[in-house]
Amino acid sequence: MRNSTIKGITNLGQWVTWNPVTNMMEMGKGGTWSMEDGLFSEYSPKSFNDQEFLDAEGRLMTPGLIDSHTHPAFATTRELEFEMRSLGKTYQEIAAAGGGIRNSVRKLREISDTDLVDLVEERLNLMLSHGTTTAECKSGYGLSTEAEIKSLRAIQSASERTALQTFSTLLGAHEIPDEYRNDRETYIDLIINEMIPAVAQQKLAEYCDVFCEEGVYTIKETEKILSAARAHGMQLKFHADEFVSSGGAELAAKMGALSADHLMAISDAGIAALAASDTVATLLPGTTFFLGSDTWAPTRKLLDAGVNVALATDFNPGSNMSLSMPFVMTLAVIYLHMTPLEALQAATSGAAKSMGIEKSTGSISPGYTADAVLWQADNYRQLPYFYGSNRVHQVVVGAKPSL
Amino acid sequence: MRNSTIKGITNLGQWVTWNPVTNMMEMGKGGTWSMEDGLFSEYSPKSFNDQEFLDAEGRLMTPGLIDSHTHPAFATTRELEFEMRSLGKTYQEIAAAGGGIRNSVRKLREISDTDLVDLVEERLNLMLSHGTTTAECKSGYGLSTEAEIKSLRAIQSASERTALQTFSTLLGAHEIPDEYRNDRETYIDLIINEMIPAVAQQKLAEYCDVFCEEGVYTIKETEKILSAARAHGMQLKFHADEFVSSGGAELAAKMGALSADHLMAISDAGIAALAASDTVATLLPGTTFFLGSDTWAPTRKLLDAGVNVALATDFNPGSNMSLSMPFVMTLAVIYLHMTPLEALQAATSGAAKSMGIEKSTGSISPGYTADAVLWQADNYRQLPYFYGSNRVHQVVVGAKPSL
Repeated sequence: MRNSTIKGITNLGQWVTWNPVTNMMEMGKGGTWSMEDGLFSEYSPKSFNDQEFLDAEGRLMTPGLIDSHTHPAFATTRELEFEMRSLGKTYQEIAAAGGGIRNSVRKLREISDTDLVDLVEERLNLMLSHGTTTAECKSGYGLSTEAEIKSLRAIQSASERTALQTFSTLLGAHEIPDEYRNDRETYIDLIINEMIPAVAQQKLAEYCDVFCEEGVYTIKETEKILSAARAHGMQLKFHADEFVSSGGAELAAKMGALSADHLMAISDAGIAALAASDTVATLLPGTTFFLGSDTWAPTRKLLDAGVNVALATDFNPGSNMSLSMPFVMTLAVIYLHMTPLEALQAATSGAAKSMGIEKSTGSISPGYTADAVLWQADNYRQLPYFYGSNRVHQVVVGAKPSL
Repeated sequence: MRNSTIKGITNLGQWVTWNPVTNMMEMGKGGTWSMEDGLFSEYSPKSFNDQEFLDAEGRLMTPGLIDSHTHPAFATTRELEFEMRSLGKTYQEIAAAGGGIRNSVRKLREISDTDLVDLVEERLNLMLSHGTTTAECKSGYGLSTEAEIKSLRAIQSASERTALQTFSTLLGAHEIPDEYRNDRETYIDLIINEMIPAVAQQKLAEYCDVFCEEGVYTIKETEKILSAARAHGMQLKFHADEFVSSGGAELAAKMGALSADHLMAISDAGIAALAASDTVATLLPGTTFFLGSDTWAPTRKLLDAGVNVALATDFNPGSNMSLSMPFVMTLAVIYLHMTPLEALQAATSGAAKSMGIEKSTGSISPGYTADAVLWQADNYRQLPYFYGSNRVHQVVVGAKPSL
């Protein structure tokens, strides 16, 4: 049945989704969700004995998960740095010694285009097998116009070979490359005057990101780069207030960014600014976990203030080598004190909103893309609860079973 | 090739193991490990083009992982309690309200024997698919002679249906059952005079365990129960100093127990006692993680004092719903500050020692059981590093490929 279009999913167990009409999570049990032209069409409480329908055999169905913050375009893993951290070095110390993002930059510039595409493809397929049907994918280990374009092209080519739906982000401002270490102004000018126009002209990225953080890009530099990106038609999603509260969330709200990401160090003023805006708070608890930190984003404060919240993996070789969205939901329940239902919402419709695709993706509703996951689970509470093994039974993307 | 005996594994990539002769971890690259009569026989630096050898295709090989502390004999999952914890209830509050272990006891007594066997079998096979080739399996949700025997028989029957090698533990002293809530002495007498003799007579358990903890079993009660078990030929492994330092580790050392398990609250005197004994410290960081605690066992202190350390999952429906040993290794590196090599040792030879099987199991060495895992990884550091997805390629138990 793989890659052949189905007419729907029948014999459902529990199904749970955000409902865009009521703007609430809703759930049902049993019956059939029909599909037409790659979209959900209607729900019937009846089940059908028809081979053109996928038989859920009573399993839990959720919308396909949406991973709205990933860095899959890297050339080599960095397990040596992981070991160094077990011996007491911090992520920042390793970066200062030439490891970290700059380590990945050297390797990315060396790898062949085809090898990079193969690696990205393998990672996208792994995401898919863990229930992710839509992913945002960043460049950011090239840090030259040529190598950033190579990364975005690799994402595009890999995406064409998988069922996963991807959206790309230019992250030329992930670090200051070594060759501009003492001349950051020139590199920022290059991003603005060469990199952004070239990527926009080749239509390689929907979004632009900046690592706005102490020691990386300042608030002023971030605003300058993002303004240029917006002038070239890109939407804005960026790294904000990860380690130090520097006003990143406030800037995101002020500029109307789709999302401000990380936010472990967000201030109360930042929370208020997001609450008064449409900007989504994208939380990446896997990074806090992988860095062995105990500084978690102040999630209940964000939720209580009415901020829209998304969950994502931050999959990357330095600060979170995991692409499992269900595990991020586990972290969200245990450490961010989200309920299992809030976590599921943040991993589907919250994430869709953070990518500006909430009118088409992230819900089991008529007219929405027919992306869904059948789980080896009886109910949605089991998804974050039974962790560390992959509970995906089948993934459907655009009405096509994909595993 | 599944379940047919092989003559060895060839075209190895990196292989890493504890060496019982040098008592150190060692590693090699390439070549072939041969097998005879279900045991490793010899290493050759050559590779063979022979269909009776399993072709590793350059993959990493480690000994089969050993999960030395699991509670797989439960009837129902407890995701509702998991959700309650996200809303602010503690594990202890939920237990006091009739949840926790007592919740599992009610369900265990109700389930049919055959349904329980099916559930345990499914869990053992999941362990196997995540690289565990040997597991210790506890009863402990029955809390009557009949229901504890039912649990141990279910473990035995399920084990016979899987390739995983299991060893069983009687944990009749997991809680005080509701019907003896006001008469704990009578229940302890029942364990000693009825349960232990019956289990020993039917040869259903190699080990005896007690939940020695404030509010559960006191040090004195623990010693009394374990003494009776030893008199009936069982070896001792027990829950010690998990939430409160109550002298559990000291008792384990004094009694010559194989292991003291949990130890988040172990005292310096307890560490010294273990260091002066052969008792293994079995660390279960998944439980700290799943309970959202920040109290980790003082692992570097234990290692620096010369204590033998094992890692295990503590797989159970209340305080750690995960059976992934690789994820436990991830936690060990990030939160216990073990190196990846120390974590691998603790998940293989350390665990074997905690079960008294270190002369036959847990090493890739001549004469050891031919249990091994081939990983989708280049080197052992990647095992804890790339977490949240299952990197097992093939599991071999007693010279038979099992996936």
